[in-house]
Amino acid sequence: MKVAFQGEPGAYSHEAAQRYADYLANTADLGLDVKGIAVVPCRTFREVFRRVEAGEADLGVLPIENSLTGSIHEAYDLLLEFSLPIVGEVFQPIEHKLLGLPGSSVEELQHVYSHPQALWQCERFLSALSAEQHAFYDTAGAAKWVAERQDPTRAAIAGKLAAQLYGLEILHEHIADYEHNVTRFLLLASEDFEALAQARSRGSTRRWKTSLVIELPHVPGALYRALGIFATHNLNLTKLESRPLRTELWRYRFYLDFEGHLRDPATKQALQELEAYAQSVRVLGSYPQGS
Amino acid sequence: MKVAFQGEPGAYSHEAAQRYADYLANTADLGLDVKGIAVVPCRTFREVFRRVEAGEADLGVLPIENSLTGSIHEAYDLLLEFSLPIVGEVFQPIEHKLLGLPGSSVEELQHVYSHPQALWQCERFLSALSAEQHAFYDTAGAAKWVAERQDPTRAAIAGKLAAQLYGLEILHEHIADYEHNVTRFLLLASEDFEALAQARSRGSTRRWKTSLVIELPHVPGALYRALGIFATHNLNLTKLESRPLRTELWRYRFYLDFEGHLRDPATKQALQELEAYAQSVRVLGSYPQGS
Repeated sequence: MKVAFQGEPGAYSHEAAQRYADYLANTADLGLDVKGIAVVPCRTFREVFRRVEAGEADLGVLPIENSLTGSIHEAYDLLLEFSLPIVGEVFQPIEHKLLGLPGSSVEELQHVYSHPQALWQCERFLSALSAEQHAFYDTAGAAKWVAERQDPTRAAIAGKLAAQLYGLEILHEHIADYEHNVTRFLLLASEDFEALAQARSRGSTRRWKTSLVIELPHVPGALYRALGIFATHNLNLTKLESRPLRTELWRYRFYLDFEGHLRDPATKQALQELEAYAQSVRVLGSYPQGS
Repeated sequence: MKVAFQGEPGAYSHEAAQRYADYLANTADLGLDVKGIAVVPCRTFREVFRRVEAGEADLGVLPIENSLTGSIHEAYDLLLEFSLPIVGEVFQPIEHKLLGLPGSSVEELQHVYSHPQALWQCERFLSALSAEQHAFYDTAGAAKWVAERQDPTRAAIAGKLAAQLYGLEILHEHIADYEHNVTRFLLLASEDFEALAQARSRGSTRRWKTSLVIELPHVPGALYRALGIFATHNLNLTKLESRPLRTELWRYRFYLDFEGHLRDPATKQALQELEAYAQSVRVLGSYPQGS
Protein backbone atom coordinates (compact mmCIF):
# COMPACT_ATOMS: atom_id res chain seq x y z
CA MET A 1 0.00 0.00 0.00
CA LYS A 2 1.59 3.29 -1.14
CA VAL A 3 0.98 6.16 1.27
CA ALA A 4 1.77 9.83 0.52
CA PHE A 5 2.35 12.37 3.29
CA GLN A 6 4.10 15.67 3.82
CA GLY A 7 7.53 15.25 5.36
CA GLU A 8 10.31 12.72 5.58
CA PRO A 9 9.84 9.06 6.61
CA GLY A 10 9.29 8.95 10.38
CA ALA A 11 7.08 12.07 10.44
CA TYR A 12 3.97 12.01 12.66
CA SER A 13 1.97 11.59 9.42
CA HIS A 14 3.91 8.39 8.85
CA GLU A 15 2.98 7.17 12.35
CA ALA A 16 -0.66 8.02 11.54
CA ALA A 17 -0.43 6.06 8.28
CA GLN A 18 0.78 3.01 10.22
CA ARG A 19 -2.11 3.27 12.67
CA TYR A 20 -4.56 3.34 9.78
CA ALA A 21 -2.79 0.41 8.09
CA ASP A 22 -3.07 -1.58 11.35
CA TYR A 23 -6.78 -0.77 11.48
CA LEU A 24 -7.31 -1.93 7.88
CA ALA A 25 -5.27 -5.07 8.48
CA ASN A 26 -7.46 -5.97 11.46
CA THR A 27 -10.71 -5.75 9.52
CA ALA A 28 -11.97 -8.41 7.10
CA ASP A 29 -9.18 -9.63 4.84
CA LEU A 30 -9.76 -8.68 1.22
CA GLY A 31 -6.57 -10.05 -0.17
CA LEU A 32 -4.33 -6.96 -0.20
CA ASP A 33 -1.33 -6.55 2.05
CA VAL A 34 -2.40 -3.28 3.63
CA LYS A 35 0.09 -3.47 6.46
CA GLY A 36 3.20 -3.20 4.33
CA ILE A 37 3.50 0.54 3.74
CA ALA A 38 5.52 1.97 0.89
CA VAL A 39 6.21 5.58 1.76
CA VAL A 40 5.73 8.43 -0.74
CA PRO A 41 7.27 11.48 1.03
CA CYS A 42 6.03 14.86 -0.27
CA ARG A 43 7.29 18.40 0.21
CA THR A 44 3.84 20.01 0.56
CA PHE A 45 0.23 19.10 1.37
CA ARG A 46 -0.62 20.00 -2.23
CA GLU A 47 1.85 17.41 -3.50
CA VAL A 48 0.11 14.79 -1.32
CA PHE A 49 -3.21 15.54 -3.08
CA ARG A 50 -1.57 15.57 -6.52
CA ARG A 51 0.13 12.24 -6.05
CA VAL A 52 -3.00 10.50 -4.77
CA GLU A 53 -5.04 12.06 -7.58
CA ALA A 54 -2.50 10.81 -10.13
CA GLY A 55 -2.66 7.30 -8.66
CA GLU A 56 1.00 7.45 -7.58
CA ALA A 57 -0.18 6.68 -4.03
CA ASP A 58 -3.18 4.68 -2.76
CA LEU A 59 -3.70 6.90 0.26
CA GLY A 60 -2.83 10.43 1.30
CA VAL A 61 -2.40 11.41 4.96
CA LEU A 62 -3.55 14.95 5.77
CA PRO A 63 -3.33 16.64 9.21
CA ILE A 64 -6.58 18.61 9.57
CA GLU A 65 -6.56 19.76 13.19
CA ASN A 66 -4.31 19.75 16.23
CA SER A 67 -5.77 19.68 19.73
CA LEU A 68 -3.59 22.59 20.88
CA THR A 69 -3.22 24.78 17.82
CA GLY A 70 -6.57 24.17 16.11
CA SER A 71 -7.62 23.72 12.49
CA ILE A 72 -5.12 23.68 9.67
CA HIS A 73 -6.54 26.15 7.15
CA GLU A 74 -4.49 25.03 4.18
CA ALA A 75 -5.71 21.44 4.61
CA TYR A 76 -9.36 22.57 4.61
CA ASP A 77 -8.86 24.64 1.47
CA LEU A 78 -7.18 21.76 -0.37
CA LEU A 79 -10.05 19.38 0.48
CA LEU A 80 -12.27 21.67 -1.55
CA GLU A 81 -9.82 22.36 -4.38
CA PHE A 82 -9.29 18.65 -5.04
CA SER A 83 -12.00 16.02 -4.82
CA LEU A 84 -10.43 13.06 -3.13
CA PRO A 85 -12.82 11.06 -0.93
CA ILE A 86 -12.10 10.85 2.80
CA VAL A 87 -12.05 7.15 3.74
CA GLY A 88 -10.76 7.35 7.29
CA GLU A 89 -9.43 9.41 10.17
CA VAL A 90 -6.73 8.81 12.76
CA PHE A 91 -6.18 10.56 16.08
CA GLN A 92 -2.42 10.46 16.44
CA PRO A 93 -0.82 11.42 19.78
CA ILE A 94 2.07 13.81 19.14
CA GLU A 95 4.77 12.67 21.55
CA HIS A 96 7.79 14.86 21.09
CA LYS A 97 11.11 13.36 22.15
CA LEU A 98 14.63 14.74 22.19
CA LEU A 99 16.69 12.59 19.82
CA GLY A 100 20.48 12.54 19.65
CA LEU A 101 23.29 10.31 18.47
CA PRO A 102 23.71 7.10 20.47
CA GLY A 103 25.98 7.85 23.41
CA SER A 104 25.45 11.63 23.31
CA SER A 105 24.03 13.44 26.34
CA VAL A 106 21.66 16.32 27.01
CA GLU A 107 24.43 18.25 28.79
CA GLU A 108 26.72 18.53 25.77
CA LEU A 109 24.01 19.72 23.35
CA GLN A 110 24.61 23.00 21.53
CA HIS A 111 22.00 22.88 18.76
CA VAL A 112 18.42 21.59 18.60
CA TYR A 113 16.55 21.18 15.30
CA SER A 114 12.85 20.72 14.63
CA HIS A 115 9.70 22.10 13.05
CA PRO A 116 8.97 25.61 14.50
CA GLN A 117 5.71 24.35 16.03
CA ALA A 118 7.48 21.47 17.81
CA LEU A 119 10.15 23.88 19.12
CA TRP A 120 7.36 26.14 20.37
CA GLN A 121 5.51 23.22 22.03
CA CYS A 122 8.68 22.31 23.97
CA GLU A 123 9.54 25.88 24.93
CA ARG A 124 9.74 25.27 28.68
CA PHE A 125 12.02 22.25 28.31
CA LEU A 126 14.24 24.01 25.79
CA SER A 127 14.61 27.17 27.87
CA ALA A 128 16.39 25.06 30.53
CA LEU A 129 19.00 24.01 27.94
CA SER A 130 21.58 26.43 26.63
CA ALA A 131 21.35 24.97 23.11
CA GLU A 132 20.52 27.13 20.12
CA GLN A 133 17.22 26.37 18.33
CA HIS A 134 16.99 25.89 14.58
CA ALA A 135 13.81 25.65 12.49
CA PHE A 136 13.40 22.73 10.08
CA TYR A 137 10.50 22.20 7.66
CA ASP A 138 9.63 18.87 9.28
CA THR A 139 10.41 17.00 12.53
CA ALA A 140 11.56 13.79 10.88
CA GLY A 141 13.70 15.77 8.43
CA ALA A 142 15.47 17.32 11.42
CA ALA A 143 16.09 13.85 12.89
CA LYS A 144 17.48 12.60 9.60
CA TRP A 145 19.81 15.56 9.38
CA VAL A 146 21.10 15.09 12.93
CA ALA A 147 21.79 11.42 12.15
CA GLU A 148 23.71 12.36 9.00
CA ARG A 149 25.83 15.00 10.72
CA GLN A 150 27.18 12.56 13.32
CA ASP A 151 27.90 15.44 15.72
CA PRO A 152 27.00 14.69 19.36
CA THR A 153 26.35 18.40 20.13
CA ARG A 154 23.29 18.33 17.84
CA ALA A 155 19.85 16.90 18.60
CA ALA A 156 16.36 16.91 17.01
CA ILE A 157 12.84 16.98 18.36
CA ALA A 158 10.73 14.31 16.67
CA GLY A 159 8.72 11.16 17.36
CA LYS A 160 9.57 7.56 18.17
CA LEU A 161 9.37 6.32 14.59
CA ALA A 162 11.96 8.89 13.46
CA ALA A 163 14.31 7.66 16.22
CA GLN A 164 13.91 4.08 14.99
CA LEU A 165 14.35 4.89 11.30
CA TYR A 166 17.46 7.05 11.70
CA GLY A 167 19.13 5.12 14.52
CA LEU A 168 18.91 7.94 17.06
CA GLU A 169 18.69 7.57 20.80
CA ILE A 170 15.87 9.06 22.88
CA LEU A 171 17.79 11.47 25.15
CA HIS A 172 14.62 12.71 26.86
CA GLU A 173 10.93 11.65 26.74
CA HIS A 174 7.93 13.89 27.53
CA ILE A 175 9.51 17.23 26.68
CA ALA A 176 6.30 19.03 25.56
CA ASP A 177 4.83 21.82 27.69
CA TYR A 178 1.26 20.63 27.20
CA GLU A 179 -0.48 17.31 27.57
CA HIS A 180 -3.36 16.50 25.22
CA ASN A 181 -1.32 17.01 22.07
CA VAL A 182 -3.13 15.00 19.42
CA THR A 183 -3.42 15.60 15.70
CA ARG A 184 -6.44 14.45 13.75
CA PHE A 185 -5.40 13.13 10.34
CA LEU A 186 -7.71 12.41 7.41
CA LEU A 187 -7.05 9.56 5.00
CA LEU A 188 -7.72 10.40 1.36
CA ALA A 189 -8.06 7.62 -1.15
CA SER A 190 -7.16 7.31 -4.80
CA GLU A 191 -9.96 6.31 -7.16
CA ASP A 192 -8.76 2.69 -7.23
CA PHE A 193 -8.28 2.40 -3.50
CA GLU A 194 -11.55 3.95 -2.35
CA ALA A 195 -13.74 0.88 -2.97
CA LEU A 196 -11.29 -1.36 -1.15
CA ALA A 197 -11.04 0.93 1.89
CA GLN A 198 -14.82 1.20 2.03
CA ALA A 199 -15.33 -2.54 1.71
CA ARG A 200 -12.90 -3.18 4.57
CA SER A 201 -14.50 -0.52 6.74
CA ARG A 202 -17.88 -2.21 6.39
CA GLY A 203 -16.36 -5.07 8.37
CA SER A 204 -15.45 -2.67 11.18
CA THR A 205 -17.41 -2.22 14.41
CA ARG A 206 -16.61 1.50 14.64
CA ARG A 207 -19.21 4.22 14.43
CA TRP A 208 -19.32 6.42 11.36
CA LYS A 209 -18.65 10.03 10.64
CA THR A 210 -19.57 12.10 7.58
CA SER A 211 -17.86 15.29 6.39
CA LEU A 212 -19.59 17.99 4.31
CA VAL A 213 -18.83 21.43 2.88
CA ILE A 214 -21.81 23.78 2.52
CA GLU A 215 -22.53 27.30 1.34
CA LEU A 216 -25.55 28.98 2.89
CA PRO A 217 -27.86 31.79 1.79
CA HIS A 218 -26.59 35.20 2.90
CA VAL A 219 -29.36 35.92 5.42
CA PRO A 220 -29.29 36.35 9.20
CA GLY A 221 -29.76 33.05 11.03
CA ALA A 222 -28.76 30.87 8.04
CA LEU A 223 -26.23 28.89 10.06
CA TYR A 224 -28.68 28.47 12.93
CA ARG A 225 -31.25 27.12 10.53
CA ALA A 226 -28.75 24.72 8.93
CA LEU A 227 -27.63 23.40 12.33
CA GLY A 228 -31.29 22.95 13.21
CA ILE A 229 -31.58 20.33 10.47
CA PHE A 230 -28.92 18.23 12.20
CA ALA A 231 -30.48 18.78 15.63
CA THR A 232 -33.91 17.70 14.36
CA HIS A 233 -32.51 14.43 13.10
CA ASN A 234 -30.40 13.84 16.26
CA LEU A 235 -27.19 13.97 14.28
CA ASN A 236 -24.34 14.94 16.57
CA LEU A 237 -21.98 17.54 15.07
CA THR A 238 -18.36 16.91 16.01
CA LYS A 239 -16.79 19.86 14.16
CA LEU A 240 -17.79 23.11 12.50
CA GLU A 241 -15.20 25.17 10.66
CA SER A 242 -15.68 28.27 8.53
CA ARG A 243 -13.41 29.37 5.69
CA PRO A 244 -13.70 32.54 3.59
CA LEU A 245 -15.32 32.22 0.14
CA ARG A 246 -12.61 34.47 -1.41
CA THR A 247 -14.91 35.49 -4.24
CA GLU A 248 -16.99 37.66 -1.90
CA LEU A 249 -15.99 39.65 1.18
CA TRP A 250 -16.84 38.23 4.62
CA ARG A 251 -18.85 35.34 3.32
CA TYR A 252 -17.96 31.83 4.42
CA ARG A 253 -18.36 28.21 3.53
CA PHE A 254 -18.80 25.78 6.40
CA TYR A 255 -17.14 22.43 6.90
CA LEU A 256 -19.25 20.12 9.05
CA ASP A 257 -18.43 16.73 10.56
CA PHE A 258 -21.21 14.71 12.15
CA GLU A 259 -21.77 11.20 13.44
CA GLY A 260 -23.62 9.20 10.82
CA HIS A 261 -23.26 7.49 7.46
CA LEU A 262 -24.65 8.57 4.10
CA ARG A 263 -26.63 5.36 3.89
CA ASP A 264 -28.41 5.97 7.27
CA PRO A 265 -32.06 7.12 6.88
CA ALA A 266 -31.55 10.09 9.27
CA THR A 267 -28.49 11.27 7.36
CA LYS A 268 -30.28 10.88 4.03
CA GLN A 269 -33.23 12.89 5.28
CA ALA A 270 -31.02 15.64 6.77
CA LEU A 271 -29.00 15.91 3.57
CA GLN A 272 -32.16 16.25 1.51
CA GLU A 273 -33.37 19.12 3.72
CA LEU A 274 -29.94 20.71 3.70
CA GLU A 275 -29.76 20.53 -0.08
CA ALA A 276 -33.13 22.27 -0.32
CA TYR A 277 -31.93 25.10 1.93
CA ALA A 278 -28.21 25.53 1.16
CA GLN A 279 -26.73 27.08 -1.95
CA SER A 280 -24.39 24.12 -2.26
CA VAL A 281 -23.64 20.90 -0.41
CA ARG A 282 -20.65 18.71 -1.12
CA VAL A 283 -20.04 15.40 0.62
CA LEU A 284 -16.36 14.76 1.37
CA GLY A 285 -16.93 11.24 2.65
CA SER A 286 -18.43 8.82 5.20
CA TYR A 287 -15.77 6.94 7.15
CA PRO A 288 -15.23 4.99 10.38
CA GLN A 289 -14.45 7.18 13.38
CA GLY A 290 -10.82 7.16 14.37
CA SER A 291 -9.41 6.22 17.72
CA MET B 1 -2.01 59.08 20.60
CA LYS B 2 0.49 56.21 20.92
CA VAL B 3 -0.37 53.19 18.79
CA ALA B 4 1.31 49.78 19.06
CA PHE B 5 1.31 47.28 16.19
CA GLN B 6 3.33 44.37 14.92
CA GLY B 7 5.80 45.38 12.23
CA GLU B 8 7.76 48.40 11.10
CA PRO B 9 6.25 51.85 10.48
CA GLY B 10 4.32 51.73 7.20
CA ALA B 11 2.91 48.24 7.82
CA TYR B 12 -0.74 47.61 6.91
CA SER B 13 -1.45 47.75 10.67
CA HIS B 14 -0.09 51.30 10.60
CA GLU B 15 -2.48 52.17 7.75
CA ALA B 16 -5.32 50.67 9.80
CA ALA B 17 -4.28 52.76 12.83
CA GLN B 18 -4.49 55.90 10.70
CA ARG B 19 -7.97 54.99 9.48
CA TYR B 20 -9.13 54.57 13.05
CA ALA B 21 -7.47 57.85 14.10
CA ASP B 22 -9.30 59.61 11.25
CA TYR B 23 -12.57 58.11 12.44
CA LEU B 24 -11.97 59.26 16.02
CA ALA B 25 -10.94 62.72 14.86
CA ASN B 26 -14.20 63.07 12.91
CA THR B 27 -16.38 62.28 15.91
CA ALA B 28 -17.16 64.73 18.73
CA ASP B 29 -14.03 66.56 19.83
CA LEU B 30 -13.03 65.65 23.36
CA GLY B 31 -9.87 67.65 23.56
CA LEU B 32 -7.24 65.07 22.64
CA ASP B 33 -5.27 65.16 19.43
CA VAL B 34 -6.20 61.70 18.21
CA LYS B 35 -5.01 62.26 14.70
CA GLY B 36 -1.33 62.68 15.50
CA ILE B 37 -0.10 59.10 15.79
CA ALA B 38 3.07 58.19 17.65
CA VAL B 39 4.07 54.76 16.45
CA VAL B 40 5.11 51.95 18.83
CA PRO B 41 6.44 49.20 16.52
CA CYS B 42 6.45 45.66 18.03
CA ARG B 43 8.10 42.43 16.98
CA THR B 44 5.16 40.17 17.88
CA PHE B 45 1.40 40.32 18.51
CA ARG B 46 2.12 39.41 22.11
CA GLU B 47 4.33 42.47 22.48
CA VAL B 48 1.44 44.63 21.21
CA PHE B 49 -0.78 43.32 24.04
CA ARG B 50 1.99 43.73 26.62
CA ARG B 51 2.71 47.32 25.68
CA VAL B 52 -0.93 48.37 25.72
CA GLU B 53 -1.46 46.56 29.02
CA ALA B 54 1.56 48.36 30.50
CA GLY B 55 0.18 51.72 29.33
CA GLU B 56 3.13 52.24 26.96
CA ALA B 57 0.60 52.63 24.13
CA ASP B 58 -2.98 53.97 24.12
CA LEU B 59 -4.13 51.58 21.43
CA GLY B 60 -3.05 48.26 20.01
CA VAL B 61 -3.82 47.23 16.42
CA LEU B 62 -4.48 43.52 15.95
CA PRO B 63 -5.22 41.77 12.63
CA ILE B 64 -7.93 39.21 13.39
CA GLU B 65 -9.03 37.98 9.98
CA ASN B 66 -8.10 38.29 6.34
CA SER B 67 -10.74 37.95 3.64
CA LEU B 68 -8.62 35.49 1.64
CA THR B 69 -6.72 33.52 4.26
CA GLY B 70 -9.24 33.54 7.11
CA SER B 71 -8.96 33.90 10.87
CA ILE B 72 -5.65 34.52 12.59
CA HIS B 73 -5.53 31.89 15.35
CA GLU B 74 -2.79 33.51 17.39
CA ALA B 75 -4.75 36.77 17.59
CA TYR B 76 -7.86 34.95 18.87
CA ASP B 77 -5.85 33.13 21.53
CA LEU B 78 -4.19 36.35 22.75
CA LEU B 79 -7.58 38.10 23.09
CA LEU B 80 -8.41 35.52 25.73
CA GLU B 81 -5.01 35.39 27.41
CA PHE B 82 -5.00 39.16 27.98
CA SER B 83 -8.05 41.19 28.88
CA LEU B 84 -7.81 44.36 26.83
CA PRO B 85 -11.19 45.76 25.73
CA ILE B 86 -11.96 45.99 22.02
CA VAL B 87 -12.97 49.59 21.26
CA GLY B 88 -13.08 49.52 17.49
CA GLU B 89 -12.53 47.66 14.24
CA VAL B 90 -11.15 48.68 10.87
CA PHE B 91 -11.53 46.95 7.51
CA GLN B 92 -8.27 47.75 5.80
CA PRO B 93 -7.84 47.00 2.07
CA ILE B 94 -4.52 45.25 1.51
CA GLU B 95 -3.18 46.79 -1.69
CA HIS B 96 0.16 45.25 -2.45
CA LYS B 97 2.49 47.35 -4.60
CA LEU B 98 5.93 46.68 -6.00
CA LEU B 99 8.26 49.29 -4.46
CA GLY B 100 11.77 50.09 -5.72
CA LEU B 101 14.33 52.85 -5.54
CA PRO B 102 13.34 56.01 -7.43
CA GLY B 103 14.48 55.64 -11.02
CA SER B 104 14.75 51.84 -10.88
CA SER B 105 12.69 49.66 -13.23
CA VAL B 106 10.85 46.36 -13.12
CA GLU B 107 13.10 44.99 -15.89
CA GLU B 108 16.35 45.26 -13.92
CA LEU B 109 15.01 43.62 -10.72
CA GLN B 110 16.88 40.60 -9.40
CA HIS B 111 15.49 40.29 -5.85
CA VAL B 112 12.04 40.85 -4.35
CA TYR B 113 11.50 40.99 -0.56
CA SER B 114 8.28 40.73 1.44
CA HIS B 115 6.27 38.80 4.01
CA PRO B 116 5.75 35.19 2.79
CA GLN B 117 1.98 35.74 2.61
CA ALA B 118 2.39 38.85 0.44
CA LEU B 119 4.77 36.98 -1.87
CA TRP B 120 2.22 34.17 -2.08
CA GLN B 121 -0.62 36.60 -2.83
CA CYS B 122 1.36 38.05 -5.76
CA GLU B 123 2.49 34.67 -7.12
CA ARG B 124 1.15 35.18 -10.63
CA PHE B 125 2.77 38.60 -11.02
CA LEU B 126 6.08 37.42 -9.58
CA SER B 127 6.25 34.33 -11.77
CA ALA B 128 6.47 36.63 -14.81
CA LEU B 129 9.60 38.28 -13.33
CA SER B 130 12.92 36.47 -13.16
CA ALA B 131 13.72 37.98 -9.74
CA GLU B 132 14.48 35.79 -6.76
CA GLN B 133 11.98 35.93 -3.86
CA HIS B 134 13.08 36.49 -0.23
CA ALA B 135 10.90 36.17 2.88
CA PHE B 136 10.85 39.03 5.41
CA TYR B 137 8.99 39.08 8.72
CA ASP B 138 6.97 42.11 7.68
CA THR B 139 6.11 43.98 4.45
CA ALA B 140 7.15 47.43 5.70
CA GLY B 141 10.39 45.99 7.11
CA ALA B 142 11.19 44.70 3.62
CA ALA B 143 10.52 48.18 2.15
CA LYS B 144 12.79 49.80 4.75
CA TRP B 145 15.55 47.32 3.99
CA VAL B 146 15.32 47.93 0.22
CA ALA B 147 15.52 51.69 0.84
CA GLU B 148 18.61 51.24 3.00
CA ARG B 149 20.44 49.01 0.53
CA GLN B 150 20.21 51.60 -2.26
CA ASP B 151 20.51 48.83 -4.87
CA PRO B 152 18.21 49.27 -7.92
CA THR B 153 18.06 45.51 -8.54
CA ARG B 154 16.11 45.01 -5.28
CA ALA B 155 12.43 45.72 -4.66
CA ALA B 156 9.87 45.09 -1.92
CA ILE B 157 6.16 44.27 -1.87
CA ALA B 158 4.36 46.53 0.60
CA GLY B 159 1.68 49.21 0.82
CA LYS B 160 1.43 52.88 -0.10
CA LEU B 161 2.35 54.17 3.34
CA ALA B 162 5.61 52.19 3.35
CA ALA B 163 6.48 53.76 -0.02
CA GLN B 164 5.90 57.25 1.40
CA LEU B 165 7.80 56.66 4.64
CA TYR B 166 10.89 55.13 3.04
CA GLY B 167 11.00 57.25 -0.12
CA LEU B 168 10.41 54.37 -2.51
CA GLU B 169 8.76 54.56 -5.90
CA ILE B 170 5.72 52.47 -6.83
CA LEU B 171 7.08 50.42 -9.75
CA HIS B 172 3.83 48.51 -10.23
CA GLU B 173 0.33 48.82 -8.72
CA HIS B 174 -2.25 46.01 -8.43
CA ILE B 175 0.13 43.08 -8.37
CA ALA B 176 -2.02 40.75 -6.24
CA ASP B 177 -3.60 37.63 -7.77
CA TYR B 178 -6.91 38.11 -5.94
CA GLU B 179 -9.28 41.01 -5.54
CA HIS B 180 -11.19 41.35 -2.24
CA ASN B 181 -8.05 41.34 -0.09
CA VAL B 182 -9.13 43.07 3.11
CA THR B 183 -7.89 42.57 6.66
CA ARG B 184 -10.15 43.16 9.62
CA PHE B 185 -8.20 44.79 12.45
CA LEU B 186 -9.37 45.15 16.05
CA LEU B 187 -8.43 48.16 18.17
CA LEU B 188 -7.52 47.32 21.76
CA ALA B 189 -7.45 50.11 24.33
CA SER B 190 -5.33 50.69 27.41
CA GLU B 191 -7.21 51.20 30.66
CA ASP B 192 -6.80 54.99 30.43
CA PHE B 193 -7.78 55.23 26.80
CA GLU B 194 -10.88 53.04 26.87
CA ALA B 195 -13.24 55.63 28.37
CA LEU B 196 -12.13 58.24 25.85
CA ALA B 197 -12.56 55.93 22.87
CA GLN B 198 -16.00 54.91 24.13
CA ALA B 199 -17.06 58.53 24.74
CA ARG B 200 -16.04 59.50 21.22
CA SER B 201 -17.78 56.49 19.70
CA ARG B 202 -21.06 57.54 21.33
CA GLY B 203 -20.97 60.56 19.03
CA SER B 204 -20.70 58.27 16.02
CA THR B 205 -23.58 57.34 13.72
CA ARG B 206 -22.22 53.86 13.08
CA ARG B 207 -23.99 50.69 14.12
CA TRP B 208 -22.53 48.63 16.93
CA LYS B 209 -20.96 45.25 17.20
CA THR B 210 -20.26 43.14 20.31
CA SER B 211 -17.66 40.38 20.66
CA LEU B 212 -17.93 37.47 23.12
CA VAL B 213 -16.06 34.29 24.04
CA ILE B 214 -18.18 31.43 25.36
CA GLU B 215 -17.70 27.89 26.60
CA LEU B 216 -20.69 25.59 26.21
CA PRO B 217 -21.83 22.43 27.99
CA HIS B 218 -20.44 19.29 26.37
CA VAL B 219 -23.74 17.94 25.03
CA PRO B 220 -24.98 17.38 21.46
CA GLY B 221 -26.72 20.47 20.07
CA ALA B 222 -25.12 22.91 22.54
CA LEU B 223 -23.97 25.28 19.81
CA TYR B 224 -27.33 25.11 18.06
CA ARG B 225 -29.06 26.02 21.31
CA ALA B 226 -26.66 28.93 21.97
CA LEU B 227 -27.15 30.30 18.44
CA GLY B 228 -30.89 30.01 18.98
CA ILE B 229 -30.66 32.62 21.74
CA PHE B 230 -29.28 35.13 19.25
CA ALA B 231 -31.86 34.16 16.62
CA THR B 232 -34.72 34.58 19.10
CA HIS B 233 -33.62 38.14 19.88
CA ASN B 234 -33.00 38.98 16.21
CA LEU B 235 -29.32 39.56 16.85
CA ASN B 236 -27.37 39.06 13.62
CA LEU B 237 -24.19 37.04 14.02
CA THR B 238 -21.35 38.35 11.85
CA LYS B 239 -18.67 35.84 12.87
CA LEU B 240 -18.34 32.52 14.63
CA GLU B 241 -14.92 31.07 15.33
CA SER B 242 -13.96 28.00 17.35
CA ARG B 243 -10.64 27.46 19.10
CA PRO B 244 -9.49 24.39 21.06
CA LEU B 245 -9.75 24.52 24.86
CA ARG B 246 -6.29 22.92 25.21
CA THR B 247 -7.15 21.54 28.64
CA GLU B 248 -9.48 18.93 27.16
CA LEU B 249 -9.32 17.05 23.89
CA TRP B 250 -11.64 18.16 21.04
CA ARG B 251 -13.54 20.67 23.11
CA TYR B 252 -13.81 24.22 21.91
CA ARG B 253 -14.54 27.72 23.00
CA PHE B 254 -16.48 29.91 20.57
CA TYR B 255 -15.81 33.51 19.63
CA LEU B 256 -18.98 35.28 18.50
CA ASP B 257 -19.45 38.70 16.94
CA PHE B 258 -22.95 40.08 16.56
CA GLU B 259 -24.64 43.38 15.70
CA GLY B 260 -25.71 45.08 18.92
CA HIS B 261 -24.46 46.94 21.97
CA LEU B 262 -24.28 45.72 25.56
CA ARG B 263 -26.65 48.50 26.60
CA ASP B 264 -29.40 47.43 24.13
CA PRO B 265 -32.33 45.61 25.76
CA ALA B 266 -32.19 42.72 23.25
CA THR B 267 -28.48 42.21 23.85
CA LYS B 268 -28.93 42.36 27.62
CA GLN B 269 -31.68 39.77 27.47
CA ALA B 270 -29.69 37.47 25.16
CA LEU B 271 -26.62 37.70 27.37
CA GLN B 272 -28.66 36.82 30.43
CA GLU B 273 -30.03 33.71 28.71
CA LEU B 274 -26.59 32.81 27.40
CA GLU B 275 -25.05 33.15 30.87
CA ALA B 276 -27.70 30.81 32.25
CA TYR B 277 -26.89 28.18 29.61
CA ALA B 278 -23.14 28.52 28.94
CA GLN B 279 -20.36 27.39 31.23
CA SER B 280 -18.68 30.76 30.77
CA VAL B 281 -19.31 34.00 28.87
CA ARG B 282 -16.75 36.74 28.51
CA VAL B 283 -17.49 40.05 26.79
CA LEU B 284 -14.55 41.36 24.78
CA GLY B 285 -16.20 44.68 23.94
CA SER B 286 -18.96 46.67 22.23
CA TYR B 287 -17.64 48.95 19.50
CA PRO B 288 -18.72 50.84 16.38
CA GLN B 289 -18.70 48.74 13.22
CA GLY B 290 -15.77 49.42 10.96
CA SER B 291 -15.93 50.50 7.37
